[in-house]
Amino acid sequence: MKLYDNATAPNPRRVRIFVAEKGLEIPLVAVNIQRKENHAPEFLEINPLAAVPVLETDAGEPISESLAICRYLEALHPQPALFGTQPDEKGRIEMWIHRVEFEFVQRVFLCFQNTHDYMKGRMPQVPEFGELSRERAQRFLDLLERQLAGTRFVAGDGFSMADISLLCGLEFGRVIGIRATEQHAAITRWHEEVAARPSAKA
Amino acid sequence: MKLYDNATAPNPRRVRIFVAEKGLEIPLVAVNIQRKENHAPEFLEINPLAAVPVLETDAGEPISESLAICRYLEALHPQPALFGTQPDEKGRIEMWIHRVEFEFVQRVFLCFQNTHDYMKGRMPQVPEFGELSRERAQRFLDLLERQLAGTRFVAGDGFSMADISLLCGLEFGRVIGIRATEQHAAITRWHEEVAARPSAKA
Repeated sequence: MKLYDNATAPNPRRVRIFVAEKGLEIPLVAVNIQRKENHAPEFLEINPLAAVPVLETDAGEPISESLAICRYLEALHPQPALFGTQPDEKGRIEMWIHRVEFEFVQRVFLCFQNTHDYMKGRMPQVPEFGELSRERAQRFLDLLERQLAGTRFVAGDGFSMADISLLCGLEFGRVIGIRATEQHAAITRWHEEVAARPSAKA
Repeated sequence: MKLYDNATAPNPRRVRIFVAEKGLEIPLVAVNIQRKENHAPEFLEINPLAAVPVLETDAGEPISESLAICRYLEALHPQPALFGTQPDEKGRIEMWIHRVEFEFVQRVFLCFQNTHDYMKGRMPQVPEFGELSRERAQRFLDLLERQLAGTRFVAGDGFSMADISLLCGLEFGRVIGIRATEQHAAITRWHEEVAARPSAKA
């Protein structure tokens, strides 16, 4: 098994943290995005969408999409469970993964892609849409604040995949100035706890 | 158990099809979006994001986000499995769900929200971004065509959640002119087969 990775891109970090939480060791293969190695024909063979991360399984099958890789690893190594074990817990965790991914992480990415200098010339930018995405991502933090005022972790008492998604999205958001403010005491408390876990260094 | 639903919105249809494929019967509660019932205080109690569908479990807990509802139901009623049973199959299905949801369905929604007359006055529109989303959604169909030229269903030989996501996204896409063309013979063949399943009427 090996993981096609990039040290600075936000998506692969989710998988590296997940792997660390599971106590697994998976060899990393660095893909240089600046040099466009992800667009080379041999990489497009394993992911036609030209994105990292990609896990190559022991059977040689490529699995891309961060959440799909994590779910595959959860199926192989169920403990510690990061997607829940009982139906209600699975539903609750999945609900928060989707909220965090669609309402926050994707909007952080859309803001970055449409407003940041790094993306100039890499894709067409529509700054007006980037700014709308910024507002919406920032607004989601208010809903999250209410949730985290009542729970230790995003989806309840236990650490889950939803915390990993949020940690990566929140820390990447700094690049474009999206962050928890002084009105977000619960998010700040949560962030300190989650960022102190050894897996956060991954 | 009951499902807060809306007959014309694209998201709840995924859950209705899933429920039909499982052979379940769950009472529907119609939420009138035109009359903004989804923004009423009592609805915001069950989903602060003001979106349908929401499943209320037998324990009275609300679960929102279509995929989370489906996964909860899969955990309660494992057969027929629509998210896979073995690790490699689970990973493959999840990969295709994410590709279809992020690369296609979300872009269909972004195009609709930013270009369609129905959304005027409901949210700020950025037509330029809507048109970029249209192009990207349409381009994803070329990748999907290559996949479906080699497999019966989106994620392989078996019908899965990935097919449900694609069916709903593809049929909703018609509203804004995103559709399979004569270059997409495999998608058209797939669409005819999947649309003929009894669940597609849900």
